[in-house]
Amino acid sequence: MNFVDLNSDMGEGFGPYEMGDDEAMLDIVSSANIACGFHAGDPDIMHRTVVAALARGVDVGAHPGFNDVWGFGRRTIVGDSIKTIENLIAYQIGALRAIAYAAGYKVTHFKTHGALGNLMFKDREISDAIARAVKAVDRELLYVIPPNTEGERAGERAGLHVLREVFADRAYTDEGHLVSRRQEGAVIHDKDEAAERVVRMVEDRCITTHSGKRIPVQVDSICVHGDTAGAVAMAFAVKTRLLQTGVEIRPLSKTFKV
Amino acid sequence: MNFVDLNSDMGEGFGPYEMGDDEAMLDIVSSANIACGFHAGDPDIMHRTVVAALARGVDVGAHPGFNDVWGFGRRTIVGDSIKTIENLIAYQIGALRAIAYAAGYKVTHFKTHGALGNLMFKDREISDAIARAVKAVDRELLYVIPPNTEGERAGERAGLHVLREVFADRAYTDEGHLVSRRQEGAVIHDKDEAAERVVRMVEDRCITTHSGKRIPVQVDSICVHGDTAGAVAMAFAVKTRLLQTGVEIRPLSKTFKV
Amino acid sequence: MNFVDLNSDMGEGFGPYEMGDDEAMLDIVSSANIACGFHAGDPDIMHRTVVAALARGVDVGAHPGFNDVWGFGRRTIVGDSIKTIENLIAYQIGALRAIAYAAGYKVTHFKTHGALGNLMFKDREISDAIARAVKAVDRELLYVIPPNTEGERAGERAGLHVLREVFADRAYTDEGHLVSRRQEGAVIHDKDEAAERVVRMVEDRCITTHSGKRIPVQVDSICVHGDTAGAVAMAFAVKTRLLQTGVEIRPLSKTFKV
Amino acid sequence: MNFVDLNSDMGEGFGPYEMGDDEAMLDIVSSANIACGFHAGDPDIMHRTVVAALARGVDVGAHPGFNDVWGFGRRTIVGDSIKTIENLIAYQIGALRAIAYAAGYKVTHFKTHGALGNLMFKDREISDAIARAVKAVDRELLYVIPPNTEGERAGERAGLHVLREVFADRAYTDEGHLVSRRQEGAVIHDKDEAAERVVRMVEDRCITTHSGKRIPVQVDSICVHGDTAGAVAMAFAVKTRLLQTGVEIRPLSKTFKV
Repeated sequence: MNFVDLNSDMGEGFGPYEMGDDEAMLDIVSSANIACGFHAGDPDIMHRTVVAALARGVDVGAHPGFNDVWGFGRRTIVGDSIKTIENLIAYQIGALRAIAYAAGYKVTHFKTHGALGNLMFKDREISDAIARAVKAVDRELLYVIPPNTEGERAGERAGLHVLREVFADRAYTDEGHLVSRRQEGAVIHDKDEAAERVVRMVEDRCITTHSGKRIPVQVDSICVHGDTAGAVAMAFAVKTRLLQTGVEIRPLSKTFKV
Repeated sequence: MNFVDLNSDMGEGFGPYEMGDDEAMLDIVSSANIACGFHAGDPDIMHRTVVAALARGVDVGAHPGFNDVWGFGRRTIVGDSIKTIENLIAYQIGALRAIAYAAGYKVTHFKTHGALGNLMFKDREISDAIARAVKAVDRELLYVIPPNTEGERAGERAGLHVLREVFADRAYTDEGHLVSRRQEGAVIHDKDEAAERVVRMVEDRCITTHSGKRIPVQVDSICVHGDTAGAVAMAFAVKTRLLQTGVEIRPLSKTFKV
Repeated sequence: MNFVDLNSDMGEGFGPYEMGDDEAMLDIVSSANIACGFHAGDPDIMHRTVVAALARGVDVGAHPGFNDVWGFGRRTIVGDSIKTIENLIAYQIGALRAIAYAAGYKVTHFKTHGALGNLMFKDREISDAIARAVKAVDRELLYVIPPNTEGERAGERAGLHVLREVFADRAYTDEGHLVSRRQEGAVIHDKDEAAERVVRMVEDRCITTHSGKRIPVQVDSICVHGDTAGAVAMAFAVKTRLLQTGVEIRPLSKTFKV
Repeated sequence: MNFVDLNSDMGEGFGPYEMGDDEAMLDIVSSANIACGFHAGDPDIMHRTVVAALARGVDVGAHPGFNDVWGFGRRTIVGDSIKTIENLIAYQIGALRAIAYAAGYKVTHFKTHGALGNLMFKDREISDAIARAVKAVDRELLYVIPPNTEGERAGERAGLHVLREVFADRAYTDEGHLVSRRQEGAVIHDKDEAAERVVRMVEDRCITTHSGKRIPVQVDSICVHGDTAGAVAMAFAVKTRLLQTGVEIRPLSKTFKV
């Protein structure tokens, strides 16, 4: 039987502010990437999200970003040293690990957020720093990363357990990267189209690019977004189509020993 | 032979800002209470402070405070739930643990900062929440607390390894608490007087209060301040007098197995 | 003909985060109290809220709070000096004035937020500091305050143009203060009951307290909340009942020359 | 008689943190560029700096930067919209204007900080946004900018009163820009060399570039740094040499009517 993980960003509120419908998403996905307080999230929200994930057997992962709540971690901050990148990754993983441990749960994966994550497509030095920090804090963490990127190669160089994710609602370039959001067709808004694309990626182990080219990829996890209008409906459509096709939704930690 | 730990707050800069002379203090004390990014400190400063402590065999402890860099954790923030207090303690300990672990070192003690620490003198509910959070994250942490306080009793109730600290430069009330800084004579500014008081407290295992009363206390650690003018000189005077009296300065983790 | 102002807090989002339905509320009220970036709001949200208010002829007021986005300005921060209170009030008013001026509009009133506002019920020293800061920055600002409070008296002492507001959905003590939210019956959840209370307060120029006592008050403005479930419906019910009773909803700046 | 303004960044502490020796610098310079709380500074520090400048007849200017205390405004934040840039400029100018007005003083000039200032060398769109925001808030503000930059041209396009500044301790490229700090010789560390360069720039109305080329410039103000070791000594050396040469140090507002 075929299986795949379904991941989504969670716990992205801040103080009194909410972002997305975490409860609804947690009923659908198998892995939650939890914001660690730098670009979103705070100790309370992290705790609540961990508890809600635990109750459903959903994996929790550290989802660190730039120290930028105002910009939600989507602004690229230029000027940090490589050592600073390492330290802010270690800090955020550690914070979530303690929150999870105190709640009787465990952080089992890692995935970067927003602008920091985007730097891992092409920036080797930053990618190596991030992989180094993950390894230094917890070398068992499953390292979730888009394939064909510097981030993927950095994880492999560091000897981490590298797992590949594809995006349900994003178009791909022939390089295997994401088409920029500024280009037309970059984001797939139709949930059935997204669901169909996902099924094809999982079954064929191939990305079909914007131009129609097919690139082979390992698909360990599917990323569905949680903070946009229609997010829950799209995640549900993706999951339903996968189940109908006979693909099991399985948390990474069930497949890969942590 | 007699011995005692000498602790001081460290890593209290923020970004480009410096606070105190950590290098000089680390050459004197045996334990460093490291700010965890909420009232002071940031991932880089935490890393640098851990590395500098490791190089000298100085113990590192988590030193969490309110989320208030602007107020340096000295403003009392009223309105957080008990659960929030637990979560912000867990978060901060976890962050420092990861930073320390990545640097090849270990967090071995815990002590609260500023206004949050002051609440542990008399607030049972908050003290219990803090002790609970420490226990939930790492029950082996040595829990450093002023004696005769709700914080001390909360640590005992939680079954933590409770260690008592006295202050080199502060006058005590007959209750065994600190005389408020707003009262005259609350702070001892003369380094030789402070040094002499410390020696008496360590030798007699007694606090002499403002009114001359003597209160028996267990003195596991002496707190010397690091962020004031003359801090280094006072810490040095205290240490010198202790050594002259035949008291060894020994990190808590050397005495108490962690 | 009778008239009254209807005010509500606005612009309380932060970065990517939204709070309440400002567009809907702006179609109902005559005055918007705009968060100034310390407890909520940011330069973009302030600008957008000013522009939306201008388009509807709704008054804009500075709505400063403690520097505490995480706590939404609802946590009391103890430890600021009186001078600090003055400075943070001046800062926030100035920031909004510039944003408004740049958009071709004008800040015409002032009202404090959350925990800072609550201190104005009973704290004379802080109330005087706030009134002093308002006067120092713009003595023409209409100063909106609950009656029977230290804040009201401070405004009068400072020679400000003091206007009184009552709350549509809050019960009053015999002192004329708000019943604590922790007590039962403190908040009126039924919109028709709230609307009926407001009409009585406007017509009778009296508050009816929790115990049934009547206290005479000047009612220049009615505060309706914008950030709770049912907020828009309640504001609409209050406005509709006022209009049906023949009470005109009129911005303060139309009545009182600024 | 010849004259020139001497400007320096001030009020760059934050909460309990100090940066530079403002009192000493205020005794030397004729204009203070005051941080406005986004990259450094807070309402209290702004107030104290304004009061100290007022006591000496030193001009005060708004010195806005990116919202980044941690990075001291030296990190480039990529991703803000043009409208966001306008709003954060307006916000910061307004905040300082209110603080100054409340203290009985007036903001008379404007100069951007750090990474935001650096963007004004070559980014036309951002420069125009900044100039637009200055004009929208206070078109009388003297707009201080390095010559031969997009920022200078943006100020001229906006019809602002543009004044040119040169740097006492920085080498120039043949383009008339600053040599990157990463290149050798970018920063002049010798105070006498810096003082000599300044005198030549003021007398000749020319920059001598790294390669020896001379570029004519209007020199309305000399920027001396305040936050580095030796800053006060260098500023004093520059001032002394100027006075010895018969050049008067005169605040911009004394020369240009505001």
